[in-house]
Amino acid sequence: MKEPGRTDRVILGIDPGTNIMGYGIIHITGTTARLVEMDIISLKKEPSHTIKLKNIFEQTTSIIEKFKPDEVALEAPFYGKNVQSMLKLGRAQGISMAAALHRNLPVFEYSPRKIKQSITGKGTSSKEQVALMLQRILSIESLPHLLDATDALAVAMCHYFQNSMPSENGKQASKKYNSWETFVSNNPGKVSGL
Amino acid sequence: MKEPGRTDRVILGIDPGTNIMGYGIIHITGTTARLVEMDIISLKKEPSHTIKLKNIFEQTTSIIEKFKPDEVALEAPFYGKNVQSMLKLGRAQGISMAAALHRNLPVFEYSPRKIKQSITGKGTSSKEQVALMLQRILSIESLPHLLDATDALAVAMCHYFQNSMPSENGKQASKKYNSWETFVSNNPGKVSGL
Repeated sequence: MKEPGRTDRVILGIDPGTNIMGYGIIHITGTTARLVEMDIISLKKEPSHTIKLKNIFEQTTSIIEKFKPDEVALEAPFYGKNVQSMLKLGRAQGISMAAALHRNLPVFEYSPRKIKQSITGKGTSSKEQVALMLQRILSIESLPHLLDATDALAVAMCHYFQNSMPSENGKQASKKYNSWETFVSNNPGKVSGL
Repeated sequence: MKEPGRTDRVILGIDPGTNIMGYGIIHITGTTARLVEMDIISLKKEPSHTIKLKNIFEQTTSIIEKFKPDEVALEAPFYGKNVQSMLKLGRAQGISMAAALHRNLPVFEYSPRKIKQSITGKGTSSKEQVALMLQRILSIESLPHLLDATDALAVAMCHYFQNSMPSENGKQASKKYNSWETFVSNNPGKVSGL
């Protein structure tokens, strides 16, 4: 959680997946966002689904320990998938969430459409269009080969836009954010005991 | 993990859910199974889905710390559900799995049909029939009001039957179990580092 009096904050964005997990970290100072790191974790070579899940928990935990984010934003699985994919994605996403919640970090979720819209202004933009816009906004020299990393960075930026610039997109901070904040302030014992 | 030379073992069974999570613990000595505890955790009153997920992780962790199981068995979500339910159940199940995997416990998954079949001999049995059979096998004095607890106990017993009595059901220990064991023995560094 953000320390009292700290005006800067770090946001971790995660694009959950059972084969590739993308992550992106941004550092906010005032109204300026700066890229800290983005990368992917390949889970393709893990010998079983169980080992993949174990790895997702450990890798998310280690990213959190290294970059000490104040907030974690995740891309929600796309509902068009079949039930088996949804189950696998739900597990992967839930495990990343658990790693963050276990560290008392507030967790937020955005739909793929919402993320694209917040970056490019269009919910139907391609991954490449999103990546190019992020490159411009954050002055990134070269884009990564795998766009799962820029997808994750887009989630972090979407969360930043949602909560920092209400006048730009005509919306207040997300409801989830408010309810978590309210919950934390109303139930200090429930979240400080870990 | 089981200590070398220990012949008894403790199995934790979990019936994951986003409103009610059931759990059952059995203690195996030789070929005798004994009920240690079964109960439910109600998540209905939690203010948000995120808080529910956080609670699932913490409650599973606390059950593991209290009962020190050697193995964890979970009921797999039933594929007949819709995608939104699958996503929610996948998250809940994944989070319980993460809590167990984080403690280096081997995790196993059984379908609802497989669980019923291993207890009553019929994959189409009702929850009540499963509960009554468990009452008989484990000499349980009175059954709990909510059958989510007996469902979880059934998962633990199913795992015990699968791995301890290959001659009774005509099958060897589950593939998942073997692959985890193989992985652990082949990759000691990967699982002992936590």
